[in-house]
Amino acid sequence: MATVPLVSDDDACQDVRSVFDDIRKTRGTDYVNNFWRALAVDPAQLASVWAEVKAVMAGPGELDPLTREMLYIAVSTANSCTYCAHSHTAAARAKGMTTGQYRELLGVIALAARTNQLANALQIPVDGIFDVKP
Amino acid sequence: MATVPLVSDDDACQDVRSVFDDIRKTRGTDYVNNFWRALAVDPAQLASVWAEVKAVMAGPGELDPLTREMLYIAVSTANSCTYCAHSHTAAARAKGMTTGQYRELLGVIALAARTNQLANALQIPVDGIFDVKP
Amino acid sequence: MATVPLVSDDDACQDVRSVFDDIRKTRGTDYVNNFWRALAVDPAQLASVWAEVKAVMAGPGELDPLTREMLYIAVSTANSCTYCAHSHTAAARAKGMTTGQYRELLGVIALAARTNQLANALQIPVDGIFDVKP
Amino acid sequence: MATVPLVSDDDACQDVRSVFDDIRKTRGTDYVNNFWRALAVDPAQLASVWAEVKAVMAGPGELDPLTREMLYIAVSTANSCTYCAHSHTAAARAKGMTTGQYRELLGVIALAARTNQLANALQIPVDGIFDVKP
Amino acid sequence: MATVPLVSDDDACQDVRSVFDDIRKTRGTDYVNNFWRALAVDPAQLASVWAEVKAVMAGPGELDPLTREMLYIAVSTANSCTYCAHSHTAAARAKGMTTGQYRELLGVIALAARTNQLANALQIPVDGIFDVKP
Amino acid sequence: MATVPLVSDDDACQDVRSVFDDIRKTRGTDYVNNFWRALAVDPAQLASVWAEVKAVMAGPGELDPLTREMLYIAVSTANSCTYCAHSHTAAARAKGMTTGQYRELLGVIALAARTNQLANALQIPVDGIFDVKP
Repeated sequence: MATVPLVSDDDACQDVRSVFDDIRKTRGTDYVNNFWRALAVDPAQLASVWAEVKAVMAGPGELDPLTREMLYIAVSTANSCTYCAHSHTAAARAKGMTTGQYRELLGVIALAARTNQLANALQIPVDGIFDVKP
Repeated sequence: MATVPLVSDDDACQDVRSVFDDIRKTRGTDYVNNFWRALAVDPAQLASVWAEVKAVMAGPGELDPLTREMLYIAVSTANSCTYCAHSHTAAARAKGMTTGQYRELLGVIALAARTNQLANALQIPVDGIFDVKP
Repeated sequence: MATVPLVSDDDACQDVRSVFDDIRKTRGTDYVNNFWRALAVDPAQLASVWAEVKAVMAGPGELDPLTREMLYIAVSTANSCTYCAHSHTAAARAKGMTTGQYRELLGVIALAARTNQLANALQIPVDGIFDVKP
Repeated sequence: MATVPLVSDDDACQDVRSVFDDIRKTRGTDYVNNFWRALAVDPAQLASVWAEVKAVMAGPGELDPLTREMLYIAVSTANSCTYCAHSHTAAARAKGMTTGQYRELLGVIALAARTNQLANALQIPVDGIFDVKP
Repeated sequence: MATVPLVSDDDACQDVRSVFDDIRKTRGTDYVNNFWRALAVDPAQLASVWAEVKAVMAGPGELDPLTREMLYIAVSTANSCTYCAHSHTAAARAKGMTTGQYRELLGVIALAARTNQLANALQIPVDGIFDVKP
Repeated sequence: MATVPLVSDDDACQDVRSVFDDIRKTRGTDYVNNFWRALAVDPAQLASVWAEVKAVMAGPGELDPLTREMLYIAVSTANSCTYCAHSHTAAARAKGMTTGQYRELLGVIALAARTNQLANALQIPVDGIFDVKP
């Protein structure tokens, strides 16, 4: 269960319906997943997040869409987001993530988690050599 | 200051010295950064982490080394690791990360953080469609 | 399932029963939610947490009870606490939180998450201007 | 030190300068704090975050600006964001937060942290009574 | 559901089967829990994690195995890991954790969570007295 | 710098002074560390936290004081609390933590961090076998 009702197509106001329609058109599927149906509790937030997702995840850029999706999984895992781990792993697979790539992603996540907490335990001072020259 | 003394070359025991030497040789630099000097409090942990870093970050694979480094930054940021954010951003730059790539990385981190916490606030149930077929 | 049995009224020892009774009386309902039934694994912790909840969430003060409840949701979301997100969103609604207020709460959570992780990624030094004068 | 150079007024491109000018005008101060000078590494992200801050923190709504600021502190604390804890506590004081209000905010943060981790340790199942009726 | 299929004994490749066999032998039980069946998506990661678990949790040392298990619960709780809270609380009980010990563990977790977030909110500077003399 | 002034002995009100005196007497030292001087912004919170610290960390129980201190370090590390990592590592050393024990503590923290994030990435379903029988 969610903390808000999931908005069905029938219950959607015009602004929400318009975002749902664009999700369907952009993704080429009739399925609108629960994230958007819950976020519809705030039509303005829904429209803003969807616009950002389109621009950040599918817009032109130097990183290919699959790399962006794997970065999304990395952040979502570290933030303990159950929903996001599921949805973005599915999205990465839909964008062609191979088992080999997924293994390497898990490998970096596991290693970073290990060293992040070692560094936090040891409170290691940052080396001057890492300073950015203006 | 750290919670342990940083081990200098002079104070390093043979096992630690051996890892320091391999870091220098592998990276082609004389500089050994503070992470390794602090981790030297446990020579076995030091050797194990360094072996994992070499294998995961520089071994053969489907993800190029820069992509792995950006994944590392993503995890480290979400885990609030000050040291790791600095060291791995520097490492990504050393591996050729452009300003454009860094902007896109920041864009995914910022978007994922936003939706991770929205999903956690709304406690959105995972769609059956994301289920993995065995 | 929980890591401990949920303590029913019948299984409650006198100290636990006494807290359950006070929860019922204070809230004007017969329902004692699972948090308290699990925490009853330690009657002293149960009594201490309930006393703190009464004082912090319902005691006299400058912040009205609904504002306190929304602050509780904000912390619980950032800490990825599934149970707390559900229970405190329900509590906020019971205290009169409107859909508009909930939207604004979600808006601040989403924005703060975004800027928190950008600040952590960029490791921005704190401005001297924020220093507190004694 | 940050992972990027802080952009001075002299180094700012036109898009960045335009945001800096709006920050100054909106806040009625000549001081532009480090967050914006670091975020200027990506002028588009800078403009987008600033627009969201203005809308979410200062736009019309049901929650007064000080309440929004205290919610921001609550999220930033749980996310371990050093910079944000400093900047938003300063902002809350500038908006009139009293010592009494700050004490109550700290009280909710401390209590929520305590119960969040107890609930995570005990893995308490969510009560059906918290379910939202559509 | 998981983001990967759980690998059954029948589907296990030789490397995975070999780890499963060692888990059974080491633990003296025929049951292989889901963590290992999911991690089998990457046989190398599976073998490496299992080797580390054996060495860290059951190898010779100054901390008894139950203390290590309680430390594991403490970290897992703070990291919001649902699976790990369940599996390691069960493991601690199997190693003889009493109700009294569990109450004290919960007591430290709750107290640390409270003071961690107070310290993060107040951004308390570290005392020079805590500095480690080389 | 902190978000509040650190309260000196001279500036302490009677309630704060009384806690400072008890800290000195209990610990057998004249030094009152910054945590308490910052928390003094709220004398009631200060008194309550100090009472809990005395009871949880030094009261009678089944876990020895050093084990409790190491659990505190484990939680503080996972919560990214800079101040707490420093202060509780110093406290553990004062209670006799050996280098060997610290190494093992770091070993569990590093392993738990690794498996916590793997479990969060893989979203592993909890085995029914871990269920607690009432």
